[in-house]
Amino acid sequence: MNYKTIGILGGGQLGRMTALAAAPLDLKVICLTPESSSPTTGICQNIIADCSDYNALDKFADLVDIISYESENIPLTTAEYLSDKKPIAPSIEVLKICQNRLREKTFINNIGIKTADFIDIKSLADLQNGVAQFGGKAILKTAEQGYDGKGQVKINAPNECEAAYNKLADNKLILESIVVFEKEISVIVARNKSGDTACYEPVENIHENHILRQTIAPAQISDDLSKKAKQIAIKIADEIGLIGLIAVEMFVCGDDLLVNELAPRPHNSGHYTIDACITSQFEQFLRAITNLPLGNTAQHSKAEMINILGDEIHDIEQHLNQPNTKTHTYAKREARVGRKMGHVVKLG
Amino acid sequence: MNYKTIGILGGGQLGRMTALAAAPLDLKVICLTPESSSPTTGICQNIIADCSDYNALDKFADLVDIISYESENIPLTTAEYLSDKKPIAPSIEVLKICQNRLREKTFINNIGIKTADFIDIKSLADLQNGVAQFGGKAILKTAEQGYDGKGQVKINAPNECEAAYNKLADNKLILESIVVFEKEISVIVARNKSGDTACYEPVENIHENHILRQTIAPAQISDDLSKKAKQIAIKIADEIGLIGLIAVEMFVCGDDLLVNELAPRPHNSGHYTIDACITSQFEQFLRAITNLPLGNTAQHSKAEMINILGDEIHDIEQHLNQPNTKTHTYAKREARVGRKMGHVVKLG
Repeated sequence: MNYKTIGILGGGQLGRMTALAAAPLDLKVICLTPESSSPTTGICQNIIADCSDYNALDKFADLVDIISYESENIPLTTAEYLSDKKPIAPSIEVLKICQNRLREKTFINNIGIKTADFIDIKSLADLQNGVAQFGGKAILKTAEQGYDGKGQVKINAPNECEAAYNKLADNKLILESIVVFEKEISVIVARNKSGDTACYEPVENIHENHILRQTIAPAQISDDLSKKAKQIAIKIADEIGLIGLIAVEMFVCGDDLLVNELAPRPHNSGHYTIDACITSQFEQFLRAITNLPLGNTAQHSKAEMINILGDEIHDIEQHLNQPNTKTHTYAKREARVGRKMGHVVKLG
Repeated sequence: MNYKTIGILGGGQLGRMTALAAAPLDLKVICLTPESSSPTTGICQNIIADCSDYNALDKFADLVDIISYESENIPLTTAEYLSDKKPIAPSIEVLKICQNRLREKTFINNIGIKTADFIDIKSLADLQNGVAQFGGKAILKTAEQGYDGKGQVKINAPNECEAAYNKLADNKLILESIVVFEKEISVIVARNKSGDTACYEPVENIHENHILRQTIAPAQISDDLSKKAKQIAIKIADEIGLIGLIAVEMFVCGDDLLVNELAPRPHNSGHYTIDACITSQFEQFLRAITNLPLGNTAQHSKAEMINILGDEIHDIEQHLNQPNTKTHTYAKREARVGRKMGHVVKLG
């Protein structure tokens, strides 16, 4: 039997768009979120509780057939507790790999795919040696919990090591070499229990202040590079034993592709699929985790996705006024600086 | 200021799909429905009340900025009561015309557009004379409240008049001549307060037992006929002073188009637009009634819509298993014979 009720840890825009995609498919989404007013409020059933509230986790697990998550940064203890009660997808193993940059890059290299060079940093001496090894420049990152540029410091010269180390020393750390790249691209691939995979075309991502601003779909890259990018994404999905979606961020360096990051869930760079592809990433995610055959990923319209950040949400009217622009608001109350409040997709 | 909260009389599949289209646009839908479990349950806010419950109507009107309806068969008294409190779109005038086949056909003929010949029937003698005038064959219909073939009797010979009359005599009646047509098509057109119109391409409808079974989009007709059909739809929208959507059903008879019926709301034959057009009919409906500019109606993929009726909902799996088929279920509990339980759209 296929799963009918999907539990999602989190109640943000990914949960919201998943719930909107679930309704037509006769699927039900239940979100566990600590916020009483969140993007999923009024869109699907919400259990308002912290993910460390085990009574709430019990109730949540009872109500659903399968559990997934909006973010790889959920506590592993929560995921492990739930996985004893109901299937969780992507698996605990996938979560462990994607929660930690060291494990993630090691896994990727071990299956023969390139990343930036990196070093496990356990002391200031490790950092100083590492920066010297990378020619005096590098990026120090927390190995866990970072997103949108949080938890990272760029080191431009050896004498910046101490300040950088002091800033982040409370965390597990990774030092990464600086990659000079032409483009940032990402590929989203779905894989179901039967091992079928379905890959979207690579898209091109433009960041501002470490936050995704714009996605151009498809990416303006050669057919060879596009093929190579998809092969990398599928290989990762297969080798990691994915059930669900994974977004693979890559740097384009000439003919080389270096994998930067994995996100085992619907991804901001795939939001364009709602409006431009036969199957949206949210429907595909649901198909992958509920044992349905995967949908067609073909793109029917060229698309440009732009994130609406913070106060920009107050100017949403300008987008609503365009006949070829699809507007998606997330119903977040507070328009904090840099917060993702919505997105628009310009078609054609 | 644009309207932000839309009240809809009814909680069926049209309300459901409208609510799903509203969420990304930062619009809120509130449905007034007598059923505690309906297709809009869990999808948007519902006020559970009969449309003759004036306390509930007061509460409903207080909560919303503008009111619309899922069906032209709502009581006029309800619509008039509400229209004193909040704007209603399409207007009471539109509703009056579309609620009554005599007024509807008279209106259409008065603006120079053809329909089947028809006669107002007030007595058995009227009916007998009418059938004679139409050559011994005709269709007797209730002037009001009929849908999906309910409230109509085909008369194949003059001696069938009495039985037909006795069956329907409690109602206002209309006799229509039988039209020999090649195809049934429909055109959906949106019009907003500013008088802008946006028309979808004509689609072809195939009925079974008077219930829509299949829509082929676009219709396989000549460019000339397609242009003519759109002109007719736009003329009707303009002349009726539409704010909202109207679906115009037409018969193709050689180079002639005869208008059969108007539906001043999203229409079953427009469900394909969710998956195959830049702007779905549900988004367009919301745009039209909330004073937003109309969206692009262009179709990006060829489509065939098939209604899922009654028990067929239990075989929905076969559609979910197709990669190019988009499935839409309506979450209706009882799968009564002929009831619209969902639809699928085959793309490409």
